Amino acid sequence: MLVQTVLTVLDWCGIVVFAISGALVASRKQMDVVGFVLLGTATGIGGGTVRDVLLGQLPVFWVRAPGSLVTCVAVSCLVFATAHIPQSRYRVLLWADAVGLALFAVSGAATALEVGAGAVVAVAMGVVTATFGGVIRDVLGGESPVVLSREIYVTAALLGAAAFVLALQAGAPRELAAGLGFTAAMLLRGAALRRAWSLPRYRPRPGRTPDEVRRLGEPPDDGRDRNRT
Amino acid sequence: MLVQTVLTVLDWCGIVVFAISGALVASRKQMDVVGFVLLGTATGIGGGTVRDVLLGQLPVFWVRAPGSLVTCVAVSCLVFATAHIPQSRYRVLLWADAVGLALFAVSGAATALEVGAGAVVAVAMGVVTATFGGVIRDVLGGESPVVLSREIYVTAALLGAAAFVLALQAGAPRELAAGLGFTAAMLLRGAALRRAWSLPRYRPRPGRTPDEVRRLGEPPDDGRDRNRT
Amino acid sequence: MLVQTVLTVLDWCGIVVFAISGALVASRKQMDVVGFVLLGTATGIGGGTVRDVLLGQLPVFWVRAPGSLVTCVAVSCLVFATAHIPQSRYRVLLWADAVGLALFAVSGAATALEVGAGAVVAVAMGVVTATFGGVIRDVLGGESPVVLSREIYVTAALLGAAAFVLALQAGAPRELAAGLGFTAAMLLRGAALRRAWSLPRYRPRPGRTPDEVRRLGEPPDDGRDRNRT
Repeated sequence: MLVQTVLTVLDWCGIVVFAISGALVASRKQMDVVGFVLLGTATGIGGGTVRDVLLGQLPVFWVRAPGSLVTCVAVSCLVFATAHIPQSRYRVLLWADAVGLALFAVSGAATALEVGAGAVVAVAMGVVTATFGGVIRDVLGGESPVVLSREIYVTAALLGAAAFVLALQAGAPRELAAGLGFTAAMLLRGAALRRAWSLPRYRPRPGRTPDEVRRLGEPPDDGRDRNRT
Repeated sequence: MLVQTVLTVLDWCGIVVFAISGALVASRKQMDVVGFVLLGTATGIGGGTVRDVLLGQLPVFWVRAPGSLVTCVAVSCLVFATAHIPQSRYRVLLWADAVGLALFAVSGAATALEVGAGAVVAVAMGVVTATFGGVIRDVLGGESPVVLSREIYVTAALLGAAAFVLALQAGAPRELAAGLGFTAAMLLRGAALRRAWSLPRYRPRPGRTPDEVRRLGEPPDDGRDRNRT
Repeated sequence: MLVQTVLTVLDWCGIVVFAISGALVASRKQMDVVGFVLLGTATGIGGGTVRDVLLGQLPVFWVRAPGSLVTCVAVSCLVFATAHIPQSRYRVLLWADAVGLALFAVSGAATALEVGAGAVVAVAMGVVTATFGGVIRDVLGGESPVVLSREIYVTAALLGAAAFVLALQAGAPRELAAGLGFTAAMLLRGAALRRAWSLPRYRPRPGRTPDEVRRLGEPPDDGRDRNRT
């Protein structure tokens, strides 16, 4: 009972902070109130929607209980009315996104375990739930998806979900495991934000001429590249 | 019986006009016939597909009854053969899109009510059904999603779906409610098209320097913005 | 029994080559290892995931049996470690993509038939399974979707799926039909790659001035185009 409550609270907090992050993107793009509601709602419930579809938990959670849908709409409208207050909305957006990421990594994995999935799938669902709201936000908002940037982002979701699942399997009580997973994801993502940490990126082998390197980095152009071997 | 017929007719008309709008995007991009079929079909059945998935009505409608799939393919091929006739394809596209929007707002809400959803979810499903075909068309076609433009677009779908659901709840017969919903959505979207109506957009608070305003409108650049507070 | 084995082998090969193609896109974009895993996995299992959702085969295949998920992760990491070996990764990517396309066209259609779909839906599912992994890869990777390029791509998937379904309906044994479908798709796609074949694209009617033609090819700009008739 308490367990369920803890997870429900995590999920609701995640929905609210992601809705805020989506609405802040709309604010940066100077959209109208409908754009705020669309981006806020899609970001707030997008990750959980994809999770429910993949797990076959249909109809999706906000059709079964539309409270989260109404909450996203209300939060987005509130951001529309008040978004001029924060001095730098982009900074707020990044931290709201980090909190949502950590919350959904745990609650997504927990939902998957509840419907009988194994550990690997539960970790994957934590990652999907934590990241797909942001993917939908960025694709709709016409920005480059943050999940593919070189910052540590998906890695933090992965760590949080894995810590939660491993702690459960080691016999930890669920509240402790959830706290551990949230903290792990939040610490790693927070450190990445504060110190601009990133993973090493793929680099072409040494010995290429600058010209070769430049051409490898080009977007694929079917016509021109086709005859290179 | 008649009710079902009215809704089926609405749905078919919506599929056809959205297929036309998708194929017209392909025509503007000078694609080949396969591009016409892909964009036309994805636009025609995309909104209803997302609706069915979210509601758990699986397999989706065009797997259960592939007539709509075949229709979309045929309509797209027809547009490929005849799209040189309209003088201005873009204008035609906008109006085809408006008719489809109004039709799907009503039929999407009606489908949700039929499978037992409440009023809030029904209105949301009307909006999803009416807009996601266009979202898929724009994302695949590499255009900025029309749902996020400042024009009145989603608002019209929202009005149509809400008018339909409210009229039903007030006891109106279904044909009347459907007609009311369609008319409301079509009038609002038509007026927005003819008079370039739009909702007020979010504006940064007064007192910012032009330089600050410019920077707030920039696409997020993680590297540069990270250290602003 | 043997039949099932053949299809399972086809499916696994398709997953591996598509995972490679997704990871190679990450390599061209010089992402970190998480980017490789994300793009590789989304490309490898994306087409089958969309197929399962549309057919209502939920939870999707990699939730039921996470082996394919683990394989995609492993393959992507392997590409991250070794992608400097191929002289031209883009050429390799195109051919890996072609093999995956042919494999999934057949296995997607076969899966649809197994769950009771008719011939039209089976062919459509072959096309969806074969192409959506690449669509997801291109949308996430920020490239123009290859399915909408003027090359023969979707057409090859369509030919392979149709050849497989027709051969089955003509009474051919399943291994033969699968081989026929794979060969047809592979030959057509291979020829398109080697000889730069393409379908005729839509051209505006003769008689337009160059200026008119130029404007028709422009991206839609709601503000400017609205008043043209």
